[in-house]
Amino acid sequence: MKPPIDASLLPRGFKFSAVACGLKKSGLDLGLIVSDVPASAACLFTTNRVQAAPVFVSRVHLSQSRHKMRGIIVNSGNANCATGAEGISVAATTALKTAWELGRHHPSQILVCSTGVIGVPLPWKKIIKAIPHIVRTRTATATAFAQFTRAIMTTDTRPKFAAANCRIGGKKVRLLGCAKGAGMIHPNMATMLAFVVTDVAASPNVLRRALRDAVCGTFNAITVDGDTSTNDTLALLANGASGARAIRWDNADYRKFLGALESVCHSLALQIVADGEGARRVVEIEVRGAPSDRDADQMARTIANSPLVKTALAGGDPNWGRILAAAGRSGVRFKPDRVEIRMAGILMCRNGSEHSFGERAAHRKLLATHVPIVVNLRAGKGTARIWTCDFTGDYVRINASYRS
Amino acid sequence: MKPPIDASLLPRGFKFSAVACGLKKSGLDLGLIVSDVPASAACLFTTNRVQAAPVFVSRVHLSQSRHKMRGIIVNSGNANCATGAEGISVAATTALKTAWELGRHHPSQILVCSTGVIGVPLPWKKIIKAIPHIVRTRTATATAFAQFTRAIMTTDTRPKFAAANCRIGGKKVRLLGCAKGAGMIHPNMATMLAFVVTDVAASPNVLRRALRDAVCGTFNAITVDGDTSTNDTLALLANGASGARAIRWDNADYRKFLGALESVCHSLALQIVADGEGARRVVEIEVRGAPSDRDADQMARTIANSPLVKTALAGGDPNWGRILAAAGRSGVRFKPDRVEIRMAGILMCRNGSEHSFGERAAHRKLLATHVPIVVNLRAGKGTARIWTCDFTGDYVRINASYRS
Repeated sequence: MKPPIDASLLPRGFKFSAVACGLKKSGLDLGLIVSDVPASAACLFTTNRVQAAPVFVSRVHLSQSRHKMRGIIVNSGNANCATGAEGISVAATTALKTAWELGRHHPSQILVCSTGVIGVPLPWKKIIKAIPHIVRTRTATATAFAQFTRAIMTTDTRPKFAAANCRIGGKKVRLLGCAKGAGMIHPNMATMLAFVVTDVAASPNVLRRALRDAVCGTFNAITVDGDTSTNDTLALLANGASGARAIRWDNADYRKFLGALESVCHSLALQIVADGEGARRVVEIEVRGAPSDRDADQMARTIANSPLVKTALAGGDPNWGRILAAAGRSGVRFKPDRVEIRMAGILMCRNGSEHSFGERAAHRKLLATHVPIVVNLRAGKGTARIWTCDFTGDYVRINASYRS
Repeated sequence: MKPPIDASLLPRGFKFSAVACGLKKSGLDLGLIVSDVPASAACLFTTNRVQAAPVFVSRVHLSQSRHKMRGIIVNSGNANCATGAEGISVAATTALKTAWELGRHHPSQILVCSTGVIGVPLPWKKIIKAIPHIVRTRTATATAFAQFTRAIMTTDTRPKFAAANCRIGGKKVRLLGCAKGAGMIHPNMATMLAFVVTDVAASPNVLRRALRDAVCGTFNAITVDGDTSTNDTLALLANGASGARAIRWDNADYRKFLGALESVCHSLALQIVADGEGARRVVEIEVRGAPSDRDADQMARTIANSPLVKTALAGGDPNWGRILAAAGRSGVRFKPDRVEIRMAGILMCRNGSEHSFGERAAHRKLLATHVPIVVNLRAGKGTARIWTCDFTGDYVRINASYRS
């Protein structure tokens, strides 16, 4: 496999590996990220009331190890969710075995993630048997990272990764991230698996702030189908191997690092939307002129999750009326007769009524891979931006037969 | 056209007609219901913040005429929504012309409804020109009623109607209803066009109470796609032509009438779901054992609107994990490890984990036209029942090309 990134982009002191342990019918399905030294860790987990066993175990481990972690082990093909006490035990055993093989570490230094079908017991023997090999074969190479990005895929059609760097006190700091997720994608940190590793030096507290700051306009601003998963995890590991001075909260170093972290998260989030199940285009929904940012966000999310809006977009249909109707049921108070709607840069609705436009040309523009929609309520200063994708027959085909 | 109902089911004193006035590419697109004498009227309108011109005009007319109406004129093919001041004027003119042709009545005695595409000016001349003919050809026949039920259709694949009767003081009272709606169907009275006429005698106040009582478990308990329309209207006309004594609130007569009204509304609501765009089955989602009825309702609606649940149902996939995941993001507090889930009568999840079942047999049962799903939280006495349909590739095909 040709490595998709240059080896110079890899943060120092991290190794990767992946194996096929038989959870998926074919292909890599178990991946490992290891830091040579204990790394500061910050994680955000799903907000779903139903949380998978690995989410439970990872939360416990983070607090036990005071957010200093050695690595992350991830399987695809089975979510280990709704699997009862046995599921918890499988996730804990996976961490235990991984920590042991890595060098008799404490199991709480390992994060565990799973993704795949819900409610089916995880065949834990396959994982446990594969751990010695996956630990032994870890390397700090672009090829190993590329294999890791494939091992975490489920209905994804392509691996998703992004890199960035910045300078802290004259030293180069590298960030490298990857993500999986194509269905059950909905904002508020319940969206997918994503891992970002960096050789910056930072305390877990600073890291947590940076992660929270970075997700607002990135991972928390995307939606594929409004369904929030039970397993979603975003993990950030920082091992300080760059040798740069440690960053502190809210100084110039922090802001430089945050900028780089945001660029990685933004790229990964948009890759997830672009690879939304069955998606053919990314749709950027911007609401302006709302009474407040919160109102704008609520309206943008309602529009982004409307099946009628999303199917119209699949057909390149300039159906601004459905956008207006979705705005109307969003719960936000506004005057319909002041609204302006632009699709793909074309003004289609002014003062709440049709503004004449060339339907043919509009249709052509709406078939692009990136379609911006701007709804201006002309009532205040609130704005929000949400990314989603169109809703195609392929989404249905993928999801009507996923399990059986 | 063979009348779908027996003439004996027609309430006394109502006439119907329909014409093709050229709003749709082909077929009937303008319908009229007339009561021989002013009838008590109760109406429920969309809760969408964006309301179509005919909704605005009908509201005004109801209050001007103190809820005593002569008739309802309905067009399909164009929603007359987001059409500005001109749209209001078109709806008002339609009522004016209809009232005039019916016998120089005051225009406020006419309700106006429109359904179809949003944001395109309604070609009002076609309607105005057709009104003398549609008024002249009205008859109290089952055939005319059948034509009316077709004239209000848009993406509906079949007309929807239901009849009931009851005895008030020894006299027979008849109820007859029809409805349209297949997409943009979402509860809270923003669902569709539906008309129920009856020859019961009742004041507008009593009628309004009966209508509100009847919609809770019927029209407000269905959802096709979570999109709330801008035009939806449920109108109930009662002209007293049966000769039965007037019903009063909450006596035995009222309850008998309410029972009949609920049966008509229930039948129409389920017909709408069964004809949901692209739908192959009706799915009944019941949540039991919730902390409160309100919690149960919230969870049932979240499950009913989950694209992942609905696509799994399209494929007959016993994917109870998606139901549990949707329950988990509904905002209702519950203990996942107490949950029981049954699909098509088969227990699939017990104490939040898989309960072993025959996958083949389950798949076969899930391909039925009516699939019950029961989620029991085992935490309280709250219950709710919501009806929806599966989400197929045809839904996408219908909606990706509706307008252009």
